[in-house]
This record gives sequence, C-alpha cells and structure tokens, in this order.
Amino acid sequence: MGQYQPPLRDMHFVLHELLDVESQLAEMPAHAETNRELIDQILEEGGKFCAEVIFPLNQVGDREGCTWDKGTVTTPSGFKEAYAQYREAGWPALTCDPEFGGQGLPQVVNNALYEMMNSSNQAWTMYPGLSHGAYECIHAHGSAELKRAYLPKLVSGEWTGTMCLTEPHCGTDLGILRTKAEPHADGSYAISGTKIFISSGEHDLAENIVHLVLARLPDAPAGTKGISLFAVPKFVPNADGSLGARNGAACGSIEHKMGIHGNSTCVMNFDGAQGWLLGQPHKGLQAMFVMMNAARLGVGMQGLGLTEVAYQNSLAYARERLQSRALTGPKAKDKAADPIIVHPDVRRMLLTQKAYAEAGRAFSYFVALELDRALAHPDAKAREEADDVVALLIPIIKAFLTDNAFECTNLGLQVFGGHGFISEWGMEQYVRDARINQIYEGTNTIQSLDLLARKVLADQGAKLKKFGRRVEAFVIENKDDAQMAEFVAPLADVAEKLQKLTMEIGMNAMKNPDDVGAAAVPYMKVAGHLVFAYFWARMAKIALAKQDSGDAFYKAKLATARFYFAKLLPETATAIRQARAGAAPLMALDEELF
Amino acid sequence: MGQYQPPLRDMHFVLHELLDVESQLAEMPAHAETNRELIDQILEEGGKFCAEVIFPLNQVGDREGCTWDKGTVTTPSGFKEAYAQYREAGWPALTCDPEFGGQGLPQVVNNALYEMMNSSNQAWTMYPGLSHGAYECIHAHGSAELKRAYLPKLVSGEWTGTMCLTEPHCGTDLGILRTKAEPHADGSYAISGTKIFISSGEHDLAENIVHLVLARLPDAPAGTKGISLFAVPKFVPNADGSLGARNGAACGSIEHKMGIHGNSTCVMNFDGAQGWLLGQPHKGLQAMFVMMNAARLGVGMQGLGLTEVAYQNSLAYARERLQSRALTGPKAKDKAADPIIVHPDVRRMLLTQKAYAEAGRAFSYFVALELDRALAHPDAKAREEADDVVALLIPIIKAFLTDNAFECTNLGLQVFGGHGFISEWGMEQYVRDARINQIYEGTNTIQSLDLLARKVLADQGAKLKKFGRRVEAFVIENKDDAQMAEFVAPLADVAEKLQKLTMEIGMNAMKNPDDVGAAAVPYMKVAGHLVFAYFWARMAKIALAKQDSGDAFYKAKLATARFYFAKLLPETATAIRQARAGAAPLMALDEELF
Repeated sequence: MGQYQPPLRDMHFVLHELLDVESQLAEMPAHAETNRELIDQILEEGGKFCAEVIFPLNQVGDREGCTWDKGTVTTPSGFKEAYAQYREAGWPALTCDPEFGGQGLPQVVNNALYEMMNSSNQAWTMYPGLSHGAYECIHAHGSAELKRAYLPKLVSGEWTGTMCLTEPHCGTDLGILRTKAEPHADGSYAISGTKIFISSGEHDLAENIVHLVLARLPDAPAGTKGISLFAVPKFVPNADGSLGARNGAACGSIEHKMGIHGNSTCVMNFDGAQGWLLGQPHKGLQAMFVMMNAARLGVGMQGLGLTEVAYQNSLAYARERLQSRALTGPKAKDKAADPIIVHPDVRRMLLTQKAYAEAGRAFSYFVALELDRALAHPDAKAREEADDVVALLIPIIKAFLTDNAFECTNLGLQVFGGHGFISEWGMEQYVRDARINQIYEGTNTIQSLDLLARKVLADQGAKLKKFGRRVEAFVIENKDDAQMAEFVAPLADVAEKLQKLTMEIGMNAMKNPDDVGAAAVPYMKVAGHLVFAYFWARMAKIALAKQDSGDAFYKAKLATARFYFAKLLPETATAIRQARAGAAPLMALDEELF
Repeated sequence: MGQYQPPLRDMHFVLHELLDVESQLAEMPAHAETNRELIDQILEEGGKFCAEVIFPLNQVGDREGCTWDKGTVTTPSGFKEAYAQYREAGWPALTCDPEFGGQGLPQVVNNALYEMMNSSNQAWTMYPGLSHGAYECIHAHGSAELKRAYLPKLVSGEWTGTMCLTEPHCGTDLGILRTKAEPHADGSYAISGTKIFISSGEHDLAENIVHLVLARLPDAPAGTKGISLFAVPKFVPNADGSLGARNGAACGSIEHKMGIHGNSTCVMNFDGAQGWLLGQPHKGLQAMFVMMNAARLGVGMQGLGLTEVAYQNSLAYARERLQSRALTGPKAKDKAADPIIVHPDVRRMLLTQKAYAEAGRAFSYFVALELDRALAHPDAKAREEADDVVALLIPIIKAFLTDNAFECTNLGLQVFGGHGFISEWGMEQYVRDARINQIYEGTNTIQSLDLLARKVLADQGAKLKKFGRRVEAFVIENKDDAQMAEFVAPLADVAEKLQKLTMEIGMNAMKNPDDVGAAAVPYMKVAGHLVFAYFWARMAKIALAKQDSGDAFYKAKLATARFYFAKLLPETATAIRQARAGAAPLMALDEELF
C-alpha cells in the first residue's frame, strides 16, 4: 500500500534552476564533466530503483523486522535481493574514489539519490548508508595497505560497514567509553568491549562487515583525548583478498524498537577481536568526526525523504477521501461529500509538509554542493569558505530537517484520520521511523549546542556572518523589487533578529554558561527558519520570473512560498522569546524537588 | 520496567487547596456527604489498584496485543484477571446511579481515578471507560425496561459496552453513514451494516457486550438528521436476566495499529442483529452527544495520564543517567559524569512535562467538578452556568491536553536518548499510545472547529465571556499584589489578546467562512494557554502564600509556574500570528497544483 514517485521535477528545479550545479561543478576539475544530462540520467535511474525495488519492501521490512539466531541476523524478505541489485547496478560506487573502483561523482548527486532512497525505505538505506561512512573514514585515515584491502570491497558493495561508538553507559559522552585495544606484535590490536545501538551491525546482505570501533589503548589518557579508532572486520581478509578467519566480533542480540525495524540494531561483543588502527593513536574522535558532516547530512536526508513520502501519500488521500462539505459550500456536488483537501486545516497540514520538503531539498542540496566545493574546489579560499558554511549548516540540516520530518510525518498521519493509526495504511510507520532521526548521530539537543556554542559563539559569529553576508547580499539585491517585498522584508527581519539574539546570548553566556544550554534548542529553530526563509525567498524570485511561463509548477512554488512566510516562519516569534528567557526558569528548581 | 506512583500529593493539592471540592460538593445534595476523607480514601485505594494491578500489564499488553480467531478476541495475559479484580472491588459503579446499583459519587472523583488508570494502562482502561459511556447513554435515553435489563449489568461490570459510529467511508462526517435499522413487529429493530474502529468491540473480559450503534431507519431523512441510536447486545438477554441467543453482531477482524495494542479495535459486522431504539427516532446523534462531554473529558484524561507517567519515568532516568559534565562545572565529582538532570535542556524537557501535567490536572479536575455542578447543583442558574463553562472547555480539554501529551511523551522518550527508542524501556509505547488521542472522539481539528465556530462564535462569545469573567475577576483581585505581578500581567495580556483575536476572526468569518477553518487550530492553542495561564496563576497564588511553610512542595509549584510563564506561554506568540494570517495562504493553491 501507499505510493512514491521520485519528485524529479522539483529536484531538477533545485539542482538546475536554483543552484545551477552544472556551472558550479564546472569550477571543480574532478567534477567538470558532470553535466546536467548525466545528473538527470542518474536521478532517473536511481529513482526507478527506489520506487520499484526498495519502496515495495518498506512495509514488509517494518512488519517482519530482522531476526536474530545464535549470532546471525536475517533481514526481512527481499532486502538481500534488493541489495544485490543495488550492488550490481554500481550504486555504492557513485561518489567513491576512482582509484578504488569508484565513479568519482559529486556529493550533491549522491545526496539527491539518498533523498529518494530514504523516501522509499529508510531502514534498508541504512545498510549502504553506513557502509559509505566506513568507506569515507578508511579512505581518509587508513594505511595504504588497509585501503587496498578494504576500499574496493566497500566500493563494490561486497562488504558493508558500521560505526561502533555507543556503549551501554555512554552515548553522547564518549569520553567515558571503556572498550579496550591491546597491541599485538604484528601491529594489529586486540579489541575487547561491548558496543550497543550498532546499526547494520550484523546481517545477511554481504559476505563481510567492517566495524569501525572506538576504543582505548593501554596508555590512553582519560576522556575524549584517549580514544582511538580501529577497523575490525567480521572476517579477517587474507593477503589475496579472500575471506580468512572469523574474527571475535559477534552480535549478541538485536533490539526491539519503535521503528526502522528492517535495520538490525545490534549489541556487538568484541572479544579480543583483531583490529587495525585508523589514523593516529588517541585521535580516534577526530578521525571519526571527518565523516561526521556527511553522516549528519545523511540523517537530514532521512528526514527529508520521510517528509516527501508522507506528503505524497497524505496528498493522495486528501484528494480521494470524501468527508463533510467545504465551509464555503459544496464543491463536489455530485458526490456525498467533498474531498477533504477543500478544508483549510487539511491544506495547512499538506502545505506544511510541502513547504518543509521543498525548502529542505533546496537547503540540503545546497549544503551537499558546498561539501563538494570544500572537497574538490581548486581554490583554497573557496574550499575554506565552503568548509565554514558546511560546518555552520550541518547541525541545522540534521536537527531542523529531522524535527520538521517528525512534525510532517505526524501531519501526514493526521490527514488520514483514524486510518493513519492503522498499520496497513503505512503512515504510522513513517512517524515511527522518523523518530530515531532526532536522536542518533548526536541528539538534536547536541546539534543545537554544536550550532550555538561551537559553530556560532566560539568564533564570535564569524561563520554565521559568512552565511549572513549571503542573506544580506540577496536582501540588498532585491530591495527595490516590489514583487519581492513580501519575501525580502520578513527575511531581513528574521536575519536581524537572529543577529541580535546571538549577541544577547553571547553576552549572557559570559556570565552564565547555562544560558547557552538554555537557549540552544529555540536558537536552532530561529536559525533553521532563517535558512528556510532565505531559500524560500530565492525560490520565490525564480518562480516570480516564470509565473507566466505557462508551467503551473511556478505558480505552485509561489503559493507555497507565501504559505511558508505566512504560517511557518512565525514559529520564530515563540522561539525567540524562549531563547531570551534564559537559564533561570530552568535551573531554579532543586533536583530533589522535581 | 518503568515505574508509576499515583501523584496523590498533587491530586490533593488540586482537589482540596485549589478547587476546595468538599465545600463545592456540599452545595449539591446528591454529593453533600462526599467529604475529603472519603475522596482521599478512594484515591488511595484506586491508586493502589492502578499501580499494582494494571500498570504491570501495560507493557505486556503492548507486546502481546489482542488476538482474533474466528470472531473471538483474546486480550493480553492478565487483562481478564485484572478486570475481574476491578469489577469485584466495585470500581465500575463509582459514579453510577444508586437505583441501578451504583455508588452515586461525583464525576470529579471518577476523573481523578481515570487519570491514574490511564497513567497505568490506557489500552486496558478503555474497556471500562467505554462501558461507562454506554451506561451513561442508556441511563439518559433507554426505556424503563431497557434500563432495568442493562444498567445493573453495566454498573456491576458484568457486561461492557461500546460506541459504534464510524464506518469505512465515514468518521468525521456521520451524516453519510449507511448502517440500516429495519423495524420488527415487536418494537425491536434489525440492524445491518459494517462499523469500523470499534474499541473494545469484542474481548474475553465479560460475558456480554452492549453495542450502541448509529443507524438509519427506513424513513430517515438524509444527513445527520436521519440517524438513530440503538442498543445491540452481543447476547440478547432473556426476561429473567440470563443470557439468551447470540445476536448477529460479529467481530470480523481486529486492526493492527500504532499503539493501544491491548485494546481490541474491531470491525463489527451487524447482520440483522436485534437492537432497541435509544431516545427518539432520527435523534441518535443528539442522544450520543449527551455522553460526548464525558467521553471527550475521558480522552483528555488519557492525555493527562500519559503525560504524568512519561514525566515520572524520564525524571527517574534523568536523575540516574550519568553523561557529560554540567556547563557550569562538575556536580557529581565522585562520578565519571554528572546526572543528566544538570543540563538545561534536559530540565526544559522535564519541566515541560511537569508543567503540562500539573496544569492539565488542575484544569481537568475543575471541568469534572463543573460537570458535577451541571448535573447535580440544586440551582438551575448554577447548572446552566456550569453547562456553558463545560461546553466551552471540553474541546480544549480534549485537544489541548492530548496535543500536549504527544509532545510530552516524546520529550520523555527524548530524555532517554537512544534507549527511548528501544521498546523494553517503555517510553516509545507512551508515544504510540498517545498518538490516537489526537484522533479519535473527534480529531483535534474538529475539536478546534467546535471550540471556535460552535462554542465561541455561534453565541457571539457569550460562553467565552463567562469564562473570561472568572479570569478578569482573578486579575482584578490580585492586581495590587506585587508578588503576583509576574503571573497576573501575562495572564491579563493573553486574555486581552484572545479577546481581540476572537473579534478579528469573527469579523473576517462574516466575509469568508474559510477564515474560521484556517484559524481554528492556532486559536485552540491560544485558548488552551489562556486556561493554563489562569490555573498556573491561581496555583502560584496558593504556593506563594505557603512557600515558607517548610513544605518544599510549594517551592516546586512556584518554580514550575515560573517556568510555564517563561517558556511555554510564549507559544501564543506564534499561534496568534498563525491565526491572524487567515485563509488566503491556505486556499490560494489550486487542488491539482499541490
């Protein structure tokens, strides 16, 4: 049940009309040949795979879940075959290094593909998604030997990968982790400890799994400065590339959880498992953080994917379901009742999903392209500028898009009324799947603290100003355009308010660090809306220019922009008040009096 | 896993210090003997039953769910035994008419009991909850004969009841329902049709089930004015009270759904089932609506119950879980990290739950007491005044408390981090259970339309003014109390803003009815906060007077009030802007352009 159509028209709008990726990529020698035709072809093929192969497995995956038996995990019906198809089509190699069999395409293309994969089947998508993270980490930090042995297998998709950070007593606070790494004489290490919440930790999709494990060396200093990163394969590869001995890395159990049932969430027991150091001793967190931007962007894409698919399904239902008459009089007079899309509040629910999906797409594709610039632009200054923009925006992508997705999947469910609560209609699964995205890869509170404390306040707002200058330039550029006033004025207003809010929190923080913790979450909301207002204003400008082109797409874009400014941007009014209220109302109550 | 302690201290505060129920009830002859001692004793006993008998079955119920086999439904392990205990202790009879074996106690006591029952096990509580609704409806509309035959069985809990409204093609819009009622010669009717989403429709807790079914008589006018209400028993009782023939009312299947797994959600097939008319022909909706206030209050209590239990569990976790250091420096220096309750944003999540639970308790107990006044006050004017206040506030209870509960159960989950997503910790079940409360018994959009269109605008704000006068009186009474200024000023402010907003929407609605539909949901939020601000101000006044009493309870109450005004009431800033934005941004987009 349910439906999913890759939103290719809107993806093309973002990639080609809004971001002009072709000319942007032309500046980067590695991607100069990635033209529009190639991109569109990839997205069309990718979209077919998503809609035809993995989308039909989404509800099956939820219903069956994974099953554990004596350390082996069986994925839901069809997952294995779909993965084989994915691998055979070469999708895992899309953005990988050609030296190891990759196709060397830009992140922005992969990002668009992942949007569609997540719309179709988030639980399934996590298997290749985490493998790509492992690929990136080994690519950045592995020895030449390790790269030769592991990367071609990850690029081809023959092996998959995981990230093993969390332990039963620590998730957010990795400084207190206990897993141990004892050096062997041959330069490898014996890894011992228990890791939990390991997504894709064990499964039947691939012949081997490479675990990236955070652990402490014997001489490690306490805290986060004593953590090292190791590659620990399920089967230790032989020199000839064939699979060798089964390593002491075993899946002790899998979790029963709210959503993403099709992905195995494993307890992994490392019992003297053989591992190889990645990067420098005690610098494991930094090594892991190299792939954090991509990973957090990836979670944001999970949010975007679910927002889009919830929207498509609730829209279809709202057009078909007949219930009550419009407040302004009957519309479908030949029927017993009007389709519910006539009701203003149903439209609010649909337009909220639509506005968040489209702004999230514009924003996240923009960030993916900035990631490409940061990695592949020939000019060091351009790379640094892109790096800063990415650093600032990544926590917003992760937190704002996943918070919106939880709201939007819930709105999608609500449009279905009682049917939304019933499993077979598929809407409640989206809500349950969306819920994890606000938690893993750093909770949204952690993202908010990262944004406010580390990305904004730590450099006195320098990175924020870099983004702010783009907003300012757009405001100035359009200030005399009467048609744009309805978008530019509120954009300028929220930009100014965020700047003032930032200064105020910065001042307060010097007196009381808790003010940062108290303001972080509402500050994230204001920052997210500044970004969305900026992209909606930019999209509105394009749509205004083409509204009489005869293509109704631009009329819809304009109406959605107006909805955003009228109904969603006002969320900043509350968030600003909450951020300014400071720490006192939170900290006044003694712990024992709660 | 998990914990629940009946919040007796806060319940006593609301009942005795805030509402002074004893003297209020003393005005009503039927309840004049319900004194504080009796109330407290009932709540203590009821709380024990909840915490010791049905709370331990909550996770079992979710895990096992109900099972259907050839028309019979088996409830989860322990449900049947717990129901037997409930029945034997006489709980179903609490507020029932002594003429039929009831104890004749006031609604306000039952309401407090139901809060605890819902905290402990919402799915289980729906069995007796719906039975009580059926009792009320038959009590109000049944013939003397029907009452004699059915009421003692419902009062004793030997039989249970259901409400059969929804059909596959209609839920909100009952005017288009199709179930038929053909008169028999003996004065009974043959009921035929399919009803869906029938909670507690079939189960193994009781020997008989009375379905209250909406259907159309052969001569029924179209629409809502052609609907009649019938009592359709599973087994037709014989004249001597023994069970007779199995009636043609069968459970065709049960739904697999997001939450409340322990309650059977049934497809009920009526195949010429014998039924008896309740109330007048074609006046079935009015007959059903008699119990709507109690039913909607009941759903509000489901929201309150889940808010409270989510709070208790996330608070316990926040005190125990060690993770990271406080921003102001280490607090638990002897431990590897501080308990997470030191972090401002964790406190925001806890205090939001606490503030909503406590205001929701004050508000809903107040409304339950007004229901008692409406039913049992000797003075007709007092009854009418109470009736109006109840009519105004019931949709707010239903929508605002259940929206808050969904937010709060999610905050509770979030406090647990990754563990919150794992089923065994119990937090994700609260989220899934809470989700239905925003949908059934009239979606929260329908509640919002009921509030704005029918309760506020239809009488030019007369009912709203009645409540507004109480707020105004409180504001005037405390305007010279400097200590109260921090509560009274924002209360007066939101009251004034709601009044202005109401007038503005009323004016716009005359030009465009869609403006009502567009404003309803945000209007509900503002109205909900006006009510909460009023109760928080009243509670703060009591707490101020007793803050030096040595009982830390009052210090906590005051700190929670301050948190509410600083961090939650500001939600009105956004909601007012959204309500004022009107219908245009929602209606501009043509249906086919979505």
